[in-house]
Parts: sequence; structure tokens; C-alpha cells
Amino acid sequence: MKAFVFHGPGQSAWEDVSDPGIEDAADAIIRVDAVTICGTDLHILKGDVPDVRSGTILGHEAVGEVVEVGSEVRTVRPGDRVLVSCIMACGRCRYCREGAYGQCRGGGGWILGHLINGTQAEYARVPFADLSVHPLPGAVDSQDAVLLADIFPTAYEVGVLNGEVRPGDTVVVVGAGPIGLAVIATARLFSPGRIIAVDLAQPRLEAAKQLGADAVANVAEGPERLVADLTEGLGADVVIEAVGVPESFEMCTRMVRPGGHVANVGVHGKPATLHLEDLWLKNVTIRTGLVDTYSTPTLLRMMTAGRLPASSLVTHSFELDAMEEAYDVFSRAADTGALKVVLGGKHHDAVALTTA
Amino acid sequence: MKAFVFHGPGQSAWEDVSDPGIEDAADAIIRVDAVTICGTDLHILKGDVPDVRSGTILGHEAVGEVVEVGSEVRTVRPGDRVLVSCIMACGRCRYCREGAYGQCRGGGGWILGHLINGTQAEYARVPFADLSVHPLPGAVDSQDAVLLADIFPTAYEVGVLNGEVRPGDTVVVVGAGPIGLAVIATARLFSPGRIIAVDLAQPRLEAAKQLGADAVANVAEGPERLVADLTEGLGADVVIEAVGVPESFEMCTRMVRPGGHVANVGVHGKPATLHLEDLWLKNVTIRTGLVDTYSTPTLLRMMTAGRLPASSLVTHSFELDAMEEAYDVFSRAADTGALKVVLGGKHHDAVALTTA
Amino acid sequence: MKAFVFHGPGQSAWEDVSDPGIEDAADAIIRVDAVTICGTDLHILKGDVPDVRSGTILGHEAVGEVVEVGSEVRTVRPGDRVLVSCIMACGRCRYCREGAYGQCRGGGGWILGHLINGTQAEYARVPFADLSVHPLPGAVDSQDAVLLADIFPTAYEVGVLNGEVRPGDTVVVVGAGPIGLAVIATARLFSPGRIIAVDLAQPRLEAAKQLGADAVANVAEGPERLVADLTEGLGADVVIEAVGVPESFEMCTRMVRPGGHVANVGVHGKPATLHLEDLWLKNVTIRTGLVDTYSTPTLLRMMTAGRLPASSLVTHSFELDAMEEAYDVFSRAADTGALKVVLGGKHHDAVALTTA
Amino acid sequence: MKAFVFHGPGQSAWEDVSDPGIEDAADAIIRVDAVTICGTDLHILKGDVPDVRSGTILGHEAVGEVVEVGSEVRTVRPGDRVLVSCIMACGRCRYCREGAYGQCRGGGGWILGHLINGTQAEYARVPFADLSVHPLPGAVDSQDAVLLADIFPTAYEVGVLNGEVRPGDTVVVVGAGPIGLAVIATARLFSPGRIIAVDLAQPRLEAAKQLGADAVANVAEGPERLVADLTEGLGADVVIEAVGVPESFEMCTRMVRPGGHVANVGVHGKPATLHLEDLWLKNVTIRTGLVDTYSTPTLLRMMTAGRLPASSLVTHSFELDAMEEAYDVFSRAADTGALKVVLGGKHHDAVALTTA
Repeated sequence: MKAFVFHGPGQSAWEDVSDPGIEDAADAIIRVDAVTICGTDLHILKGDVPDVRSGTILGHEAVGEVVEVGSEVRTVRPGDRVLVSCIMACGRCRYCREGAYGQCRGGGGWILGHLINGTQAEYARVPFADLSVHPLPGAVDSQDAVLLADIFPTAYEVGVLNGEVRPGDTVVVVGAGPIGLAVIATARLFSPGRIIAVDLAQPRLEAAKQLGADAVANVAEGPERLVADLTEGLGADVVIEAVGVPESFEMCTRMVRPGGHVANVGVHGKPATLHLEDLWLKNVTIRTGLVDTYSTPTLLRMMTAGRLPASSLVTHSFELDAMEEAYDVFSRAADTGALKVVLGGKHHDAVALTTA
Repeated sequence: MKAFVFHGPGQSAWEDVSDPGIEDAADAIIRVDAVTICGTDLHILKGDVPDVRSGTILGHEAVGEVVEVGSEVRTVRPGDRVLVSCIMACGRCRYCREGAYGQCRGGGGWILGHLINGTQAEYARVPFADLSVHPLPGAVDSQDAVLLADIFPTAYEVGVLNGEVRPGDTVVVVGAGPIGLAVIATARLFSPGRIIAVDLAQPRLEAAKQLGADAVANVAEGPERLVADLTEGLGADVVIEAVGVPESFEMCTRMVRPGGHVANVGVHGKPATLHLEDLWLKNVTIRTGLVDTYSTPTLLRMMTAGRLPASSLVTHSFELDAMEEAYDVFSRAADTGALKVVLGGKHHDAVALTTA
Repeated sequence: MKAFVFHGPGQSAWEDVSDPGIEDAADAIIRVDAVTICGTDLHILKGDVPDVRSGTILGHEAVGEVVEVGSEVRTVRPGDRVLVSCIMACGRCRYCREGAYGQCRGGGGWILGHLINGTQAEYARVPFADLSVHPLPGAVDSQDAVLLADIFPTAYEVGVLNGEVRPGDTVVVVGAGPIGLAVIATARLFSPGRIIAVDLAQPRLEAAKQLGADAVANVAEGPERLVADLTEGLGADVVIEAVGVPESFEMCTRMVRPGGHVANVGVHGKPATLHLEDLWLKNVTIRTGLVDTYSTPTLLRMMTAGRLPASSLVTHSFELDAMEEAYDVFSRAADTGALKVVLGGKHHDAVALTTA
Repeated sequence: MKAFVFHGPGQSAWEDVSDPGIEDAADAIIRVDAVTICGTDLHILKGDVPDVRSGTILGHEAVGEVVEVGSEVRTVRPGDRVLVSCIMACGRCRYCREGAYGQCRGGGGWILGHLINGTQAEYARVPFADLSVHPLPGAVDSQDAVLLADIFPTAYEVGVLNGEVRPGDTVVVVGAGPIGLAVIATARLFSPGRIIAVDLAQPRLEAAKQLGADAVANVAEGPERLVADLTEGLGADVVIEAVGVPESFEMCTRMVRPGGHVANVGVHGKPATLHLEDLWLKNVTIRTGLVDTYSTPTLLRMMTAGRLPASSLVTHSFELDAMEEAYDVFSRAADTGALKVVLGGKHHDAVALTTA
């Protein structure tokens, strides 16, 4: 089959590899219908994620059809159309028992396209299939559904739920890239009084408005002043970091009100400064997290009911074998305006709708 | 009357001042029976708290008898024996309505011995008396009860409740000074599986054992290794910072398990480094807070039922007019072994018990 | 002034009475701008609420202008336009400290138009004004705002928050009268997957659809079967009782899924049968409650932001002195189609908007 | 092997049956070391549980040694000493993903000694072994550990956690049989201010005192008056029903304070009357539940740390083949004073301690 293989920094290609097979009784083999590219994949390409060995197929998000299952798999069978979650779950360890699948101690967690071969391929092997794939209703479009593999549960769990967004709240989202936009879209599920998006790039702030931000602020324009003005000087109830640099995180801790919450979604490579001399007496809660995907069934229900604006995030669509071009477009987002790029999805979708 | 007055760094004295009177209809005047000295008072003496103006009477903790009340006071009257909380509450603002009295926007919060005259005196004026004093049952000793003014609610709310200690948890308390010891004592209310105390000073670790620590570790002996060994390498469920220096806070963030909680009780004067490059994916919750004293009625019930080992924290007892000596002993804790020093309390107590 | 006075069952009138005055330092006197009539008022008229003595002015909901305040009132002053909550709060008792104002032990709770004179009058005395009235932004219409006095916080707190509605949930609301409709409107703030309204009357089910119900079921059509069909036989996540009769409550307990919540909003006059032989092993939570109005500031923020469809509930509008006619229309709701009737509001509103 | 087989009401015997074998890849076969008898087993013997077919081996609690595992079992292996939970979990369904194993839709839940053969035998087959058995540390005694199979998690989850016991609370436990006593023992983990035990039988009230009740009341002596007197007429914070008859449940709903919690642990065969005419406005929460055993790892940690007084509940100890005698003693508890009877456990225990 064809797959997108990492061969070290700057050395990756869509190339021939051997087909995956069942290696463990809990595995499923998926024929990939739709995949997407994550910001993390770009980090891998640059060599920033040393755990990824040369020769690894990348990708941790997919929609596809089950073509084979191990003897232990009980909840899906060949022919089922499924979402492949970015997180695998052994289902047996302490963390899995609490739904914290991202912290799985039994061989799961984020392993696809990281420690084992991933989904940017014609076929993929998915371990622990019972807890790691979700059957899809026919009415859900594959190009939408693939966004439930990572970006939507990440935004919802690590941003919105960890941030404890409540009706009437003032919510600030710092960073209006794809993940920040998904935070805005899912924060709206709790009817905050006001969502303020902050970014450096004007086009992203425009996108934020379209996804439901009530106000936007360019970093250059002093977002801290805007937040203070809108909250009688108090600060925001919830501030969500969706960038991943120290300056952004530190700004978040300055914009939160006493008693408020900071939820960190950004992937950080460096430490930040925590101004405890200001924060120690402010009753502030700061939460970090890798996505666990415990919310995927809920989000899938929301999408089926037409209440998640997933397609607004997809700016570019490709055939599966245009992987290298898709990477190129996605990696030059400032030029191309790319938010999420999706590969595949259209043809199978039509079939699914017909037979549903 | 006599009172302990701050006159600038190194310039404070137990001296004659005029008696306080009712200034606002919500005030009460208290004849002070027992007071204590807080670590914060030492910071003020050094000039570290610039809000405190010269001429201010220090002290924000007391037990005493109500001698006069303003026209608006409804819940106590002259003759009542009361605890004076370190936090005043207007009862009307957004924060007070949620029990976050420490963040009061209506003139309350920590003001006693800070922005207005305090309790290290023969008499004290207490604003917003209805929400800021608590009637005491006769059976509760004044020297014990005065620890409910600040140290116990601080330890319980900011350490134990913010840290979300649960039965069976492994809890690490970094810092075994008076506040850390009160954290240990109140953490035990939730039956953690194991409490590990960490400090630099061996006598404090001995005190920690007496208050219920199951294991102790000197910083020099590698507490991080001990915690890892006791938790199969995972880290502690709850880590509570009770020192107030960057190194200590940073150690806390290294000792917490994925999915665990760090609660900061320490008063910090400098920023700390937050290693987001390690923490971003660990599902960690970090909470800060000033005490709100919403838990004081609960703690008073516990003390009345004999379930708070308050007296174990009191190492030195003085007459009220030995204030300067008491400050001297408390400020040289490393030499004197002082944990909490209490002034007054014995004589009035006897009376209270007789008449109750 | 004129007021609507209860003189025993069937003996009430809009008549001349003396003006109210300040009786306690915490009182405010309000010139009434807009009032509404509650289902409870009809119960009083029939003699079902024996606590209400003859001679009492009815009404516990109002918008008006402060004309006089007692010396203890700190947060409003003459000239302020305010919402009068149906619940008064002493602010000092155990329940008020926890925001459970409806359970106030210090003289508050539901007393207006019940134990003391109420708001269906040209002027009204409001005890504990600081915690019992809420200043209104000029942009909020009085006829809308008066629905924040009782019906919206009741629906939101006792129905939606007690029921713990979450995104994606299947929510059943039994009873589509005014309170049930307000439950539907506020349940939507949490983006449930599906709201099913149940009632006996087709016009009310139509109103339910307009306020956001996704499906409706007439009791005669077997709502339990519908709920089972829509939930794969499992039952609803949240079921909210908004009628107040045993049959309705019992239906709710049959429609909830294992692990789900039943929230009772209805006012009951008789016991119901609790089928513990079925429910004991179903992990079901049942909650009851009188409104506390702790959520009023949040709801006011939502209304100001245009996110509460209050006006959809108002079917009839009268001048204040048409009180008897308004009662007549409201009491014959089956004939008149009345949901909420509002008296007053238009004229003063215009003034408020001009001067705001 | 020998096993205790149900042959219809009054027709059960310890008799020869064939050994169990692996039927599913997720099964484990356990050589039974210690078992106990549950009140539910007595109901089965009387024919009250029609789901139990003639020929079924009874028993849903055990400690034993794994002797064989199916190919899918990953967390235990032959030779491991384990606790067999009364609840099996498929680990894949919606309920299992949330830890609500008692509501498992995938073939688990309470099936042992109910829908399939149970543990009152020399060997037992345990389905879904990975989530249904727990490896035991050598230091834990089998006779103690077997109480973690059902009675302790039931008391803790359905009584204490559902009742939301908090430090300082007044907790009433109605019913001081084995399960009520286990509720008292586990409620103490949260340091309530006062536990009041209510029962009809004086010996049980004596046992309640020994397990930590602060006050006891015989039903004949008016426990409602006692609770009112101890709570200034307000009622208890938490009331836990551990009997299973309507009168007892109804008493619980009269003894709870406004804002309090009623947790039902009793197994009910008849409906109760819910006095909504009193309760509708009292902000009361009522919870029911079958045990899920999600807390078993926590309780096991507590037991290992010596913090669960399990042995106090064991009044009689037998060899495994004295099953019929043990049933006789347990079924005549009023005469024999039996709380929990345990069979087996001593010999293997000694071995385990030696080799640990």
C-alpha cells in the first residue's frame, strides 16, 4: 500500500510500504477513508519529537472501514465505518478505568503515528480497537467526522471542560489557529456570555468571528486592556491558551479574574514564568492536559444532531494520494490560509449515505 | 488601651493608643481575649508589605468578647464570646455571594492589621461583624479557637480542599512549619492513604510525624525519589506547597502524578518556573488561593467535637502584654522551636467555662 | 396607593391601601413599574396557601424604581431601576452563606405576597434589599426583566442545574406551561442533544416547539414509548417535572435512564409513589427545590446579551391598574392561551432607555 | 468439585458438580479460598429472585487463586491471589466507560450466582477477568479481603459517596445490620461530626457504637426527635437507608435537613410513599444505586494501610465445606448474632503471608 513515512527531519514521503496485519488479538485493520494532518505532525517532520523513529508512518486521525479484527474485538466488525481516535486505551489500567485514556499505562495513549505506524496510509492497524474506534452513523460526513479524532475532543476536553466554561461567562481564547477555533466552537455549547479571541493574525481573527467569537483582539492592540474594559477590571472567568509559547501562557495568567480558570491546550516546548507573587492570593486554577477522548461519544452525538460546525474548519480538501501536497499547503498556513486540510472522504461518504 | 503598633521596619512596640469605637453601623468592638502571631506579621515588620502604613495596629486573628455593636449588627451582641476571622466580608458583592470572602470587592477581605487597625491589642474594631465573627461554644478553649481565625481555614481551604484530598490518596506536604502542620492535620479528615511531609529541618519533620505524617523526608535526602518509590514511579495524587519559594513550588510540580493536584498555600514574593514542556500533557491542576474562611463554621464544629488537634500546634503561651517577647520567640523559630505562639486566653477561658 | 389585596378565597380586589414605609434599616421602597402573576398567586386566591392572611397584598415579582432605602442599604439608592427577586435573603444565616436563599433562616426566603405585603401594588417594601434586588442595565426591557424575578431562576436552578443538563443529553420536560417552557428555554443553554416536551394540551406543545423542543409528545400518545424509542430503550439522561401531580412525577421516574437525573420543579399538594422496587438499583438521582435565585445575576447577564427568549413567554400585557382583568385572563389560561401576563412596564421602560 | 447449588425455594445443597472451565477468552478460573454469604443469597433461597434458575451455584463474593486464564486476559495469571468482585464489567459499553459497571450493557453487572454460576464452590469461572478481579497484596487477610467483594464497596459507593458525606456532617444511618455497619465504618473516612445509628435491635446498636456511631437510637425511642434535638430542629445533612422497607425510607426523608442528601442502600421489594407535598421545596437530593465497585482499588488501598475495620464485621468463621451450617447461622442472625460469616480463608492466608 501507499503511506506517508517519516525518514528523519525533512525526509518524508508518500511511498510504497507493506500492508499492516493483525499483530494482537485486540487489533483492527482499517481501510482509511479520510485523514487529516495535525500541527504535531509538522513538529515530527522538523525532528522536534525524538520518540518518532525513522520509518514510522505518520498520522493519528482517521475515518475508515474495518476490514479485519483480532479475536478479542467485540464491538466492531468488518464492514463497519468507524472513527479512529488519536488515543488508544487498554481499558484495564488505573487511568483507563477513570476515562483518562491519554494517560494509559497499559500500552495505549498517543501511540499512532508516534510510537507505532499511523493513519496517513491506505490501511492502518489500530490497537485496542474496542475502546479506540467509534462506529459512525451513516448521516455523518467523513470529512467532518475525522475532526472528531483529535481536534474537537482536544478543544472540548482540555480547553472547554477543563476551563469549566459556564453560561454567562466571559471566555478568552488566546490563539485562533485550528485548535483555538475549535475551542471557540465548543465553548459555545455552554452559552458563555462573551467569547473574546486573541491572535496575531487578522485572518484568523476573522475566522474566529465566523465561528462565534463575540469580540476579537490583535495582540498588538492590547488584548489585556480590552478584557479589563469588558469585565470592569476584573478579568475573564475562563482563559484558554491555544498557542504553546511562554508569552501566550503568561498573558493568560494576567487576564484571568480572581477565582477564574486557565486551561492550557497549547503544546509547549519551553518553560513559562508563573508569577506566583501575583497569583498566590488570586484563587486561580490552572489546568493542563493531553486529550483523553472520553468525550468523543458526546461530540459524535452533537455532530449527528448538526450542532458542531466542523466543516467551517476545513479549508482544503485533497485526494488521499495528494499527501505531500496537502502537507505543503498545511505547513504554509500563513500563506495558504489553511486551517484544517482533509484528505479523502468524499467518495466513500456518498456510498455510506446511500446504504445507510 | 495597649496595642502592638507598626512604625516602619524594625520599629514596632506594645504601646498606649486610644480605644477603638464604632465607625460604621456594621462594626463590632471586641475585648481581645486571645491572639496569635502570623508569619505575615513578621513580613510586615520587615517592611515587605508596603500597604501597611506606619501607625497601624497589627494582628488579624483573635478570640474575644463583644462589648459594643453597631446598629446594623444582627447576629451577635455584647457579652458574646466570639472568634474574629482574619477575613471580613461585606456579604453583598459577587465574591461574597459565592463565599469567596477573601476576594470581597465591598471593603472586606484581609484588612485587619493590614489596611485598618488589627487585633494585637486590648480592644479591636471588627467591620462587617455579622459575617466576620463566629460565636463560640463555651466548651471550646480560646487558645485553640484562635487558630481557627487563619491558620486552620487556610490549611483546610487552600491546601486540603483546593488539593481535593480523597480517601486513599498519597498526599505530599512540602513545608512543615505551622501552616504545613495544619495542612497535615486537616488532610487527615479525608483519610488519605499516606501523608508524606517534606522539610529542611529535622525538628519540623518530627512535629509532622506527631501530627499524622506517615512518612517524612528531608529535602537533602531526595524527597522526589521517596515519592516515586512509594507510588510505583507515578507521583503523588495531591502535593501541597506550604513554603512560598520558587524551588519548593517547582519541586511540587515534579512530584505530582498525571491527573493529580498541586495546591499552593505558600505566600510567594517571586515568580516560579512552570515547566510546561513537561506538564502540558500531564492533566495536572494547579490552584492558588487566599483563605476565604467559608469553612470556619465546619472547622468550629470539628473542634467542638474534639476532632482538630489544635493544641498540638501551640508551643508557647504568653500574657497579652508580653507581646514583644512573643514576637521575639516567634521570629526566632529555628532557635526556639516555636510553631504557634498564643497570647492571652487562659483566664477568660476559665470564666467562660464556668458561665456556659 | 392601589394594591391587589387578598381577603380570603374568592375575595380579592385592586383597592386603596396605605403606602408602605421603611420598617427596618435593610428595607427599600420600590415604585412598581412592572409585575406579573404567578401560578402560586392563583393557589393563594383559592385558599390553598393558609399562611397567607386576609389583608395581604399579593405578588412576589417586580421591576421598579427605588424611591427610599433604610440606613443599612449599601448597594442601591433612590432612582435605581431594579429587579425585585421573589426570594429575600438575610445574608447571614447558614443557608444564605451557601447561596441557598430560599431556605433562609434569618427572616428571608419567600415572604413577599405570602407572609408580608407583596408587589402587586403601586409601591412595595422589600426587606433585605441589598441581597434581594438587582440593579438593571438600561437596555433590558422591564417586561422581560420581571420574568427574572421567579420563573426563569426557578426553571434554571431547580430544573436545569439540579437536573445537571449536559451537552448532548436527552432531556424530557414534563409539563409545557410557563414554567416548563422556561425550563426548555434555559436547558438549551447547555446544548442538550434533544429536548422532548410532554403535555396534555396541544397548544402548549406548539409553544414548546417554538421555544426549542426538538420533539413533543401528548400524554395521550404514550410519551414513555417515544422516549424509549429515541434512546435505544435506555431512557432519558434528565427528566424534569414541571406539573406538580403524582402521576406526572411517577412518569418522570419511569422515563429516566439508569444513572440519570430527575429534577422536580412542580409544586405538589399530594404524595407520590416512589417505585423503589424498580429504582433501588438504577443509580438514579432525584432532586427537589424551592428557587434560591442565586443564579439571577447570571441570567441577567444572559438576558442583557440577548440570549434568553423571555418575551416569547409573555402572551398578554396590561396596565398596572388592570390587575383584576389580568388575573381573570391568567386564571383561564386554557381558554385565553395565557402563558405569562405582565402588567405595566412599557412607559417607564421608555424613560429608562432615554436616561440610561 | 463441591458447590452450593440452588434447586428452588428451600432446596439447596453443598453437593458435587463438575468443575468449571474457560468458556470465553476473557474468563479466569479461580480456586476459591474464602467466600461469604450475602443477604441477597437468602432472598434467592426463598425464591424472591426469579432470575436465578434451578441448578445455579450461588455466591458473588470470593478471594482465591487464579488457576487458569483465557487468551484475552492480560492483567492476572495463574498463581495470582485475587479478590473476585461481585460486579463483572465488559469494559466497552457506555456504562463501563464511566465506571458504572453495575449497569454494564455488555454482559457484565451482577451475574455471578445470579445469571451464571457463582463463587460458593471450590472453583469458580469469572468472566471479564481483567476488570472483575483485583490482585491482592500478601499482607491483606483473605477473610478481610472478601468483604471488599460487595459489602464495603456497596456501603461506600451507594451510601457514603452517593450521600456526599463531608467533614463535620451529621450523618444518620438507618439500619445497623452488616451493610449499615459497613456504612458507618466507611462514613468515618470523611470525618463527619456525628454519626447516629438507628435500628430496632439493641445488639445491632451496640455493634454500631463499636464501629464508630456517636449516638444510637432504637426506632421505638423516636429517632426523629433525637435527630431534631441534635440539629437544632434542622435535620441531618446525610441520611442513609440500609434496611429496604418503605417505612424506613420514609423515615429517612423526614430526617433530612433542607439541602441534605438521602442515599438509599437497602434492597426494596415494594414502593414507598414520597411526600412531595413536604419535600418539593426542601432542596433535597435522593439517590439510589446498585454497587459499581469502581471504588474497590481505593478500598483495597485503605485496607492495606490498616484503615478499614473489616474484621469487626466478621462474627463467624467456617471451613468452606461447612456451607450449609454457615447458611443456617447467617439466616438466623437474630438468634446467632451473626453479622458476616466467612468460609475458608485461614489456611491459604498463612501461606500467602509466608511467601509474600
